[in-house]
Amino acid sequence: MNPEKKEIISSFEYLRKLFIMPDSPDKFIEFGHQMLETIHDFFKEKGGIHSSITLPELSRIFDETAVPDAPNLIKDVLAEIKLKVAAHSVKVGSPYYVGHMTSAVPYFMIILEMIIAALNQNQVKIETAKASSFVERELVAWFHRLVYNRTENYYQRNMQNPRVALGNVTSGGTLSNLNALLVAREKAFPPSGSFPGVREAGMEKALRHYGYDRGVILVSARGHYSIRKAASILGLGEQNVITIPADSKHRMDVRGLCRKVDGLQSGKGKNKTKIIAIVGIAGNTETGSVDNLPKLAEVSESVGTHFHVDAAWGGAALLVDECRTLFQGIDRADSVCIDAHKLLYCPMAMGMILFKNEKDLNLIKQSSQYVIRRNSVDTGRFTIEGSRPFDSLKPWAALKIIGREGYGLLFRRARDNTDTFQEILQRRQNFEILNSPELFILIYRFVPQQVKKQLYKWQASKRLSEPEKREVRKKIGKVNHIINALNIKLHKALRLDDTTFVSRTTLESTRYRPQHITVLRSCLINPLTDRSILEEIVKTQNRLGMELWPEFEPAYLKALNGVRKTFAGGRGEQEQGRWAL
Amino acid sequence: MNPEKKEIISSFEYLRKLFIMPDSPDKFIEFGHQMLETIHDFFKEKGGIHSSITLPELSRIFDETAVPDAPNLIKDVLAEIKLKVAAHSVKVGSPYYVGHMTSAVPYFMIILEMIIAALNQNQVKIETAKASSFVERELVAWFHRLVYNRTENYYQRNMQNPRVALGNVTSGGTLSNLNALLVAREKAFPPSGSFPGVREAGMEKALRHYGYDRGVILVSARGHYSIRKAASILGLGEQNVITIPADSKHRMDVRGLCRKVDGLQSGKGKNKTKIIAIVGIAGNTETGSVDNLPKLAEVSESVGTHFHVDAAWGGAALLVDECRTLFQGIDRADSVCIDAHKLLYCPMAMGMILFKNEKDLNLIKQSSQYVIRRNSVDTGRFTIEGSRPFDSLKPWAALKIIGREGYGLLFRRARDNTDTFQEILQRRQNFEILNSPELFILIYRFVPQQVKKQLYKWQASKRLSEPEKREVRKKIGKVNHIINALNIKLHKALRLDDTTFVSRTTLESTRYRPQHITVLRSCLINPLTDRSILEEIVKTQNRLGMELWPEFEPAYLKALNGVRKTFAGGRGEQEQGRWAL
Repeated sequence: MNPEKKEIISSFEYLRKLFIMPDSPDKFIEFGHQMLETIHDFFKEKGGIHSSITLPELSRIFDETAVPDAPNLIKDVLAEIKLKVAAHSVKVGSPYYVGHMTSAVPYFMIILEMIIAALNQNQVKIETAKASSFVERELVAWFHRLVYNRTENYYQRNMQNPRVALGNVTSGGTLSNLNALLVAREKAFPPSGSFPGVREAGMEKALRHYGYDRGVILVSARGHYSIRKAASILGLGEQNVITIPADSKHRMDVRGLCRKVDGLQSGKGKNKTKIIAIVGIAGNTETGSVDNLPKLAEVSESVGTHFHVDAAWGGAALLVDECRTLFQGIDRADSVCIDAHKLLYCPMAMGMILFKNEKDLNLIKQSSQYVIRRNSVDTGRFTIEGSRPFDSLKPWAALKIIGREGYGLLFRRARDNTDTFQEILQRRQNFEILNSPELFILIYRFVPQQVKKQLYKWQASKRLSEPEKREVRKKIGKVNHIINALNIKLHKALRLDDTTFVSRTTLESTRYRPQHITVLRSCLINPLTDRSILEEIVKTQNRLGMELWPEFEPAYLKALNGVRKTFAGGRGEQEQGRWAL
Repeated sequence: MNPEKKEIISSFEYLRKLFIMPDSPDKFIEFGHQMLETIHDFFKEKGGIHSSITLPELSRIFDETAVPDAPNLIKDVLAEIKLKVAAHSVKVGSPYYVGHMTSAVPYFMIILEMIIAALNQNQVKIETAKASSFVERELVAWFHRLVYNRTENYYQRNMQNPRVALGNVTSGGTLSNLNALLVAREKAFPPSGSFPGVREAGMEKALRHYGYDRGVILVSARGHYSIRKAASILGLGEQNVITIPADSKHRMDVRGLCRKVDGLQSGKGKNKTKIIAIVGIAGNTETGSVDNLPKLAEVSESVGTHFHVDAAWGGAALLVDECRTLFQGIDRADSVCIDAHKLLYCPMAMGMILFKNEKDLNLIKQSSQYVIRRNSVDTGRFTIEGSRPFDSLKPWAALKIIGREGYGLLFRRARDNTDTFQEILQRRQNFEILNSPELFILIYRFVPQQVKKQLYKWQASKRLSEPEKREVRKKIGKVNHIINALNIKLHKALRLDDTTFVSRTTLESTRYRPQHITVLRSCLINPLTDRSILEEIVKTQNRLGMELWPEFEPAYLKALNGVRKTFAGGRGEQEQGRWAL
């Protein structure tokens, strides 16, 4: 940098001007334009979804071990961002990227982010967030109504009543779940007599006071890992998250739940267990399936426990009448969480947690002299988080711009894309679909046609003797083991090819349960994805799968012939090494 | 809306186009321009800082109880935002707003927000955040080095090593403190023998296994309320946050700490107490004071407990050599949190939590099949939060644009403004300054000159008999009670006037301790604030204070003359009513 320039940008006067929205917005527009072009280039680029750079290479780009001393020109730093950051970002908005719950976002979101940053309100307190506190409460009321559908009068009375909160805006589903389970914990161990409640006294005193050995949370095996995380954070212990197996539709097995609840309730004396919450899932993140909410509500009510529904993924579908039947019973939940950065198509990251009882959040109410005084109207009294951005503007404005009708069109497209994808995969024959997709998530795997036929033949075989049945089960297990390894390798090959993207997971609730099956996982919510793109995605997977197959075929043939030999390819899941994905 | 328009914006084709960055960015630029003007108008407006609208009026503006059905044109919604939201937002960036830790932000932050939203990376997982994961780790390493200053080799080895994490990026100080105390809890009750650790087994089993009655956290009375919140969330119980009184410099009283620690450690049998953490504060949010970190480190080390430093407010000052002496001893902390939306001048909200031991975060490591696999390099393995935005780009780019040198200039300005403010207040004589400001926070109160003189005379009086001393103390107490009420009323009057803004709090650690004194609180970090603005702020406060004084003077005169009568104005702190601030 020439020394004169350096001197300028090291002066206070130069810095001060950065803090002023320039009187003539030329400079701002100039950079804005430049940025738009960067973004354009990025999205237009034909290249890979993840950029071909390796992680070790990236680690060498970002290897400055100390903060820069000297200032730099904005344009130089923006150029650096373009070259080093944007170029090696993941094109999560690409219509070929159908692997995670991220999608393209409408461009007006970028304008909303500008407004949010410029206003820079802090939602913790009315002194730093005036209209924005009311926007947030209005948004929360909208979703509360979608879930609970209380009377018009109820919302008029409560939506802007600072004495209560219908819910909180959070940084996302994980915090929403934590918030819900925190409230459930307070409800499970309330103050009584000389006992000041778990909030004051802690978990140990709470269990002792109420004479319980432990407090547990029940959730299906498809539950999000944030439930386990919450149990750990809340001092309940991860071992007190009891997972109920999923049924073949990837929903919580209700009979399993009832058996477990009966077992827990029969514990006496030293083994007394408090059921703190039952968690239902409305759109699990792996398969999109919705638990049987009415049944779960029934069990929760009979036990007298908090019923939480994790609808972080699916909840926004409540906007659209034709999706609502899926969520039957959700209004019986004590709390429900819904994310905005998923099906509301907002940028990362914002969630909501809603409570049926508008007084529930009073159980965790906080106050502080300098920021959220006891009798204030500050939103921060009810939240786990402290300072929070005005992120609620994004879904609030998006709902006005897109409307329920618009979201209806978007979700219909997502459903159509899901159906189309399924149809294409079926037509290709070398794929096996492993769920009946709810909420736009389809899981499947690559299985050469002849293998699939063989598996189905084995599964259909009847009138076998016990030893024969065992033999068939063993063979199915062995073949699935091989196909698992094949799909792990296929997924790696897809990542290398990098023109398309699906994710991968392992499930025990497919038709082969209890065997763990490795599946490819697709989320089909990007409205820019269409039939031709889906054809291309499947074509690529089929091509790469077939290229890999010869490597696995000998093992398959051996398994077919019942030759007992350990299959060498089976260690694929153990992704060792520093840079494994 | 005309029906034709409605039809267009209800079509999928119209919606689809919203998801595409337009090929010609005209539309985008048009809205961007419009938005810029909105923002301009907002900042230029001469009017009040909080807008004069009342909260009940606002509650009638945002009273839609149901989600909009039909879509609306973007421009109409943006106009609505301008009219209803921006116009009634708090001008936290105003140079006359010196009351909270929010300031003007550099305009390039808005451009960075555009990039973040457009890239829409999800930091939880490398498949959704490639370069951005490395940017985040680089940023964390920079601050780790500012705090701990380990060797160049240490950072080269660890900063981009996915097996460990030097820290996390969080949504802000509250989550950072929770994260630090969660790790402290795991360290306090680790797995041993058949005991699987508190994370697995929960708080009750942990205390029982280790034979403790309770686990406590020690923090000064100036500790942020998030520490209490964290203790509650973590299942420790709020009553197990032990607050150590603050000394007259608003720092933790170290002798008080030692006494408390000795007392706790002498507990035997049923009363055994585990000290989970000692929390120091490096820039408390009420007065800016920094605890005696070397002493706190010493005590922590002697006890063998986790030493956490809450530097959410002050930590960024480590960037500037002349501030570093304040933080002496911070490198002995096991964990330190620093916020970006405070002294790094980033928009709401982002924090960092740093750990001295790069293996500490492994104690809370999580994995999940579909998103953060065990052997992955995903950042989400170490965080409390799940999906997270690429917010780290803002401080990362700001440090490049502003540099340590630039932050040096900004902090020098903040210090100069603090000194200037103090000087102006002293010159005005009707104010009493109640701290020796560290880190740009000045607390003071309005006290008419004659009252201040009288208080000082009483405090200076020597050779008094015990009954006389009691009488003087009583009088001081009574007068302070009156002055408290005056300052609460003054603060309300300032809010009504609304041309300037300072906040208000109540402290027991002023020269009048243990009496609780209501103070005005100013944070002088906005680089646009200058001497003339500070003069104006003080002039307004002095004028309004003097206008209010006659209402309080009779009570003062009575107190002066020792007439015992309950002062009617003393209930000011009980801010009743639905809309109290």
